[in-house]
Amino acid sequence: MAESRRPPATGAGAISPRAYRSTILIRFAHCDPAGIVFFPRYLEMFNNLVEDWCRDELGVSFAEIHERRGWGLPTVHLDVDFAAPSTLGEVLSASLVVRRIGTSSITSEIQFRGSDGSERVRGNSVVVLIDAKSRRGVPIPDDLRTRIARFQDAN
Amino acid sequence: MAESRRPPATGAGAISPRAYRSTILIRFAHCDPAGIVFFPRYLEMFNNLVEDWCRDELGVSFAEIHERRGWGLPTVHLDVDFAAPSTLGEVLSASLVVRRIGTSSITSEIQFRGSDGSERVRGNSVVVLIDAKSRRGVPIPDDLRTRIARFQDAN
Amino acid sequence: MAESRRPPATGAGAISPRAYRSTILIRFAHCDPAGIVFFPRYLEMFNNLVEDWCRDELGVSFAEIHERRGWGLPTVHLDVDFAAPSTLGEVLSASLVVRRIGTSSITSEIQFRGSDGSERVRGNSVVVLIDAKSRRGVPIPDDLRTRIARFQDAN
Amino acid sequence: MAESRRPPATGAGAISPRAYRSTILIRFAHCDPAGIVFFPRYLEMFNNLVEDWCRDELGVSFAEIHERRGWGLPTVHLDVDFAAPSTLGEVLSASLVVRRIGTSSITSEIQFRGSDGSERVRGNSVVVLIDAKSRRGVPIPDDLRTRIARFQDAN
Repeated sequence: MAESRRPPATGAGAISPRAYRSTILIRFAHCDPAGIVFFPRYLEMFNNLVEDWCRDELGVSFAEIHERRGWGLPTVHLDVDFAAPSTLGEVLSASLVVRRIGTSSITSEIQFRGSDGSERVRGNSVVVLIDAKSRRGVPIPDDLRTRIARFQDAN
Repeated sequence: MAESRRPPATGAGAISPRAYRSTILIRFAHCDPAGIVFFPRYLEMFNNLVEDWCRDELGVSFAEIHERRGWGLPTVHLDVDFAAPSTLGEVLSASLVVRRIGTSSITSEIQFRGSDGSERVRGNSVVVLIDAKSRRGVPIPDDLRTRIARFQDAN
Repeated sequence: MAESRRPPATGAGAISPRAYRSTILIRFAHCDPAGIVFFPRYLEMFNNLVEDWCRDELGVSFAEIHERRGWGLPTVHLDVDFAAPSTLGEVLSASLVVRRIGTSSITSEIQFRGSDGSERVRGNSVVVLIDAKSRRGVPIPDDLRTRIARFQDAN
Repeated sequence: MAESRRPPATGAGAISPRAYRSTILIRFAHCDPAGIVFFPRYLEMFNNLVEDWCRDELGVSFAEIHERRGWGLPTVHLDVDFAAPSTLGEVLSASLVVRRIGTSSITSEIQFRGSDGSERVRGNSVVVLIDAKSRRGVPIPDDLRTRIARFQDAN
């Protein structure tokens, strides 16, 4: 099965070695009547990428965050350029690099590229760690901050 | 039934009289395990708002655009701030004001507010009119440009 | 604007006078690369119809059910025939008739028709009123049962 | 990463050795305010499973079917029982067994189970191979029929 079959593209537009990388299979369910990915589906893929990164690299799954710790991790800002369309059956390379770590916020740059390295989507996402009940920011705990910082780019 | 029951909020954060306005019912299908709108669903609402504006005010439905004229209207840029969460059963006021009309592109500012006028989402969307086959920009026809300009804010 | 603009179709395949009726605008977001409604979107429309019926006719909104009363209303069974495709921009007539009221369950027949009365989707849905914590069935309260029974067909 | 990390469950409710098997990661994007999978998302998973089976085992990807051969593969019937809820972070075992091969139709039984083998969803799906333009049934070609038959259960 799918969602993660090929190594990420390299070469043109190479991504920081510190990036979290994944792959995304473009499915029928993602595509619109124009035969290309409907842009809100890309934003679901942003959320999925952050979800996988938290579980695989930060040691806190979304189940842990939302159900056991009583936190939330809402997206408070997005800016995204959709450079070129993606089509049914393509496998995109996804990468996430941390740009800034605030008291409670994480700013990430996310890129999706085609198998030839061509850019499809590039954007910045800001998520904030909050207390689910009060909806106020929670300072990112030190152990979590250390793990996040491993994905921070020097640039 | 729904999606359009109340007049838009007025008062604080009042919207340009030139805005296209609509309302959005927050449904169960929009909400996540935190009980609030999952942010990619807001981007579907952006697309729905542009779709309704095209049909109701610009004289070109999405069916006309995509099926009969052989055009596309992809979103090429988004920047969005998610100011506060929206919850199941709320009816939001939506507005769209045109910020810039390019040769083939339309830049719109979109806002969603709660029934008390409080801001929930504010963003800019850039869509481009393209030829569906060549995927190149199509100059916006004059009659369509005139109708779009009615929603352009002086600011 | 939208989702509810035209009166339901009559004539061929006429629906019981006891039906709950609504209309559904087929949006770009519902359609797949074949240019027709992607079938899981029809099931979201089933859920939306039940949501609207609960709020408009049964006196219990989904917010009331899920947040204030501590209930859930999961779908436990579906059988659906997709008779003909629906396309972008169509407005379907939706109807819901109750077929059976159990201790905690409601069996409804749902139909979507085109503006010419032609059948698009017909199915049966069984939902169960549960306690959200124990996930056990809750007997439908008498006042709610009375309101539900108004939509029960004699057949 | 993900969507396919663990071997399928065995034991109770064991699946035919002829089944096509996959795994499904339950994501945040699948879950509703009750914290469990929103049922229309399961139907997207049905479609994804058929999509993966076509590509991995039948030698015809959905891109091949829809774009190169000019076919469609709409779902014309579903009956589904939702036996128990699935929660954020779970990895379900999915299986597909063919129950009947008609001239143009394929009837499949699809099951999703938890990691302990407990049933979550079981349903039958009927898809039909059609000509995308005429929307009429296309007889399933012999080579494709032979590959489909490998997943047909004797029962």
